[in-house]
Amino acid sequence: MKIGRVAGNVVATIHHPFFAGRRLLLCDLVTPDGAAEGGYLIAVDAVDAGPGDTVLIIDEGNSSRQIFGIDTGPIRTTIVGIVDSAAEV
Amino acid sequence: MKIGRVAGNVVATIHHPFFAGRRLLLCDLVTPDGAAEGGYLIAVDAVDAGPGDTVLIIDEGNSSRQIFGIDTGPIRTTIVGIVDSAAEV
Amino acid sequence: MKIGRVAGNVVATIHHPFFAGRRLLLCDLVTPDGAAEGGYLIAVDAVDAGPGDTVLIIDEGNSSRQIFGIDTGPIRTTIVGIVDSAAEV
Amino acid sequence: MKIGRVAGNVVATIHHPFFAGRRLLLCDLVTPDGAAEGGYLIAVDAVDAGPGDTVLIIDEGNSSRQIFGIDTGPIRTTIVGIVDSAAEV
Amino acid sequence: MKIGRVAGNVVATIHHPFFAGRRLLLCDLVTPDGAAEGGYLIAVDAVDAGPGDTVLIIDEGNSSRQIFGIDTGPIRTTIVGIVDSAAEV
Repeated sequence: MKIGRVAGNVVATIHHPFFAGRRLLLCDLVTPDGAAEGGYLIAVDAVDAGPGDTVLIIDEGNSSRQIFGIDTGPIRTTIVGIVDSAAEV
Repeated sequence: MKIGRVAGNVVATIHHPFFAGRRLLLCDLVTPDGAAEGGYLIAVDAVDAGPGDTVLIIDEGNSSRQIFGIDTGPIRTTIVGIVDSAAEV
Repeated sequence: MKIGRVAGNVVATIHHPFFAGRRLLLCDLVTPDGAAEGGYLIAVDAVDAGPGDTVLIIDEGNSSRQIFGIDTGPIRTTIVGIVDSAAEV
Repeated sequence: MKIGRVAGNVVATIHHPFFAGRRLLLCDLVTPDGAAEGGYLIAVDAVDAGPGDTVLIIDEGNSSRQIFGIDTGPIRTTIVGIVDSAAEV
Repeated sequence: MKIGRVAGNVVATIHHPFFAGRRLLLCDLVTPDGAAEGGYLIAVDAVDAGPGDTVLIIDEGNSSRQIFGIDTGPIRTTIVGIVDSAAEV
């Protein structure tokens, strides 16, 4: 799993019914201390995340489908949590 | 999921029947604001995308097979949407 | 599988019941001789690892689910061992 | 899927019966216009590709197993087509 | 699949029974002509490979489980062959 920061949202014309009513969020990948890593992922939101939130991202299809309680569906990347702290010890 | 821009098409001799009549599109990976990321993927088109379109790409086999409604088939990468906007907030 | 060093822990609001009571550890990826590789993974702990421990990480959903004895669950990355030595010969 | 160029072949002592009689080809990854990308994959050939051929590569286990019509087998990377053209538009 | 060179072994305290009696080998990733690529993988040995051997590595969970004849097990990376030659043509 990786940490990202919600940077915006994506509006797309997608024909598959899974995406109806789902929010697609643009997440910049960040290091645990919040610096940009230089990449991004487009994720489906499962936790009502909003712009600027630091989030936990799972980038695996089976995990993502299980979060939404579906056996099939074209999804690989999901925001599963809002990160309160990611502290180096 | 990632964002790409359709840069061309790929013509290939492929023996597997899944590919009969499918369009293979060359997609340059781009950042959300449209700059080149420096990589590409060859994707099967599921949304009638065309050259220059900004598209949403899923690079996972099970997702791709579900889009085409098949249980088996040699496919990993699919264009699932046309991106209207990917806005930083 | 990769080697990491536990650098801290992650506290996140996650709604999926799988994560209740699970420890999420921040693991810096390291080379076998312990130098930083420049990336990190957020992993669920399966071996009571603690800060500073060198750990063996599996980054695959099915492997991770099998470690926790579950058929479904949104998890991709798990700490499966504590590394005693990773010696170049 | 990615584009590669067949650069040679690999001879290896492999005990799993799947590999008996299979050709393992060394494929340099290339950009759509044929320049080297700087990586490579070892792929099982499914289309009688030969040295110098530009090929379409699928790097996913389930896709690869389906190409060979098997339910199980230790294979992740397969050459599924010979690329006639990969044209930027 | 990728080519690696066995650089050492890893000793780790792992609680999952799959790892009892398995050898974990540290494999530096190499180019086909034997130069270091700058990464590594920790793999379970399936072919009695030893230090200095050039090996064929599959980094996929289902492939790895099938090599060991198990339906479940926390493994993603396996040494499936010893490379005799990887010749550019």
